[in-house]
Amino acid sequence: MKTDTENRDGKTRIGMLVFPMVTSLDVLGPFEVLARAPDCQAELVWKNREPVKGDTGLVITPDRGFDDAPQYDVIVVPGGPGQTPLMEDATVIDFLRRQGAGAELVTSVCTGSLLLAAAGLLDGRKATCHWMSIDQLALFGVQAVPERVVVDGNRITGAGVTSGLDFAFTVLATLRGEEPAKALQLMMEYDPAPPFQSGHPRVAAPELVEKVRASAREMLQRRMEVSRRVAANRGGLAR
Amino acid sequence: MKTDTENRDGKTRIGMLVFPMVTSLDVLGPFEVLARAPDCQAELVWKNREPVKGDTGLVITPDRGFDDAPQYDVIVVPGGPGQTPLMEDATVIDFLRRQGAGAELVTSVCTGSLLLAAAGLLDGRKATCHWMSIDQLALFGVQAVPERVVVDGNRITGAGVTSGLDFAFTVLATLRGEEPAKALQLMMEYDPAPPFQSGHPRVAAPELVEKVRASAREMLQRRMEVSRRVAANRGGLAR
Repeated sequence: MKTDTENRDGKTRIGMLVFPMVTSLDVLGPFEVLARAPDCQAELVWKNREPVKGDTGLVITPDRGFDDAPQYDVIVVPGGPGQTPLMEDATVIDFLRRQGAGAELVTSVCTGSLLLAAAGLLDGRKATCHWMSIDQLALFGVQAVPERVVVDGNRITGAGVTSGLDFAFTVLATLRGEEPAKALQLMMEYDPAPPFQSGHPRVAAPELVEKVRASAREMLQRRMEVSRRVAANRGGLAR
Repeated sequence: MKTDTENRDGKTRIGMLVFPMVTSLDVLGPFEVLARAPDCQAELVWKNREPVKGDTGLVITPDRGFDDAPQYDVIVVPGGPGQTPLMEDATVIDFLRRQGAGAELVTSVCTGSLLLAAAGLLDGRKATCHWMSIDQLALFGVQAVPERVVVDGNRITGAGVTSGLDFAFTVLATLRGEEPAKALQLMMEYDPAPPFQSGHPRVAAPELVEKVRASAREMLQRRMEVSRRVAANRGGLAR
């Protein structure tokens, strides 16, 4: 990892992780905001620059490989089905630990918070996660807070998928103040009007909540198995 | 253009236009929804399959070229700075006319409605557009309705950028009914909570509205020049 501070142009460097089977909108929603943020340089980063496919089949092309990445000022970690195996991927966990140690802001969207947790970057912190997986945060000693965006010091976490927009405007306001965030909300016409009130278990029909949870059961079980194993191994490490 | 109905697998085919300097979220927000829609096949389509760069520099890889595209059941046209030159691009306008003539739903997000209008697909219809460009719809004989999502028969148009999510759940409900749309809103945790009330001129500070409009002035002027020229030429054609 280059820290090449001599090449810095004064811009805030924002590194946004991508990976196979990422939920694309977890990262591309925030990218749309942060790539437009004044005096910021947002880029997509993965092990190498080979394109990866998100969980809808979308081809995502990384801007940068891990070996070529600078120390980022802001690190953003998205989630999705592909997050589960990465909790046991030493290259990814090592990258996140090194970045997390030097970044001004350490952030995530959706189940990205479980990756941060697996890397030991949320120990004792408040954080959020996708509503179906937020229970897994406690395995890592994280205080789960079921809100849309949770700020705890320099940790900012967003809940499921579309929360990435609310998250990104919060990150932008943290970096640059409210004025640029409000201007960009206006430019991006971010004045949402969901056609249905069904975007969270608090407001959705209970039987629909059970149906959606049931449709994800296998994925959730695999994630829980890995979270338990990783959390147990972390507990046994001298850290 | 192949219509290969004999190869149909019963899925609703959704073709989503991409192009250089597209506003990525205009198309990738709706893609995230429609690619997950039951019994649908959503894909990104452009002149050819060479990757294009959106207006934030994001690399977007088309799934399909125009020559290889089937007749889509739903056509989705996004906007962004790159929409302006396409209003005078005969290949694109011809593609949209042919698709629009056969599609069940003809739709757009952001300034994509100006492309549909330039292709003659919104004549006399109600439609919306990004708030900064919605005034240009009238040049094409379209009834501009400054709402977030406008449905007029089989035309569904969304307003600026982030409206693509509200738009996409509306399209999904139109195609498959409310239940799958509500289930997907829940899966994608679409229960937005913008950090600021600044996402539309109705709610933003008037001085901020002027500032944002001023920052886009050149782009808006270029777009207006092209819209005027295209509308004038269309008026002169026997159609």
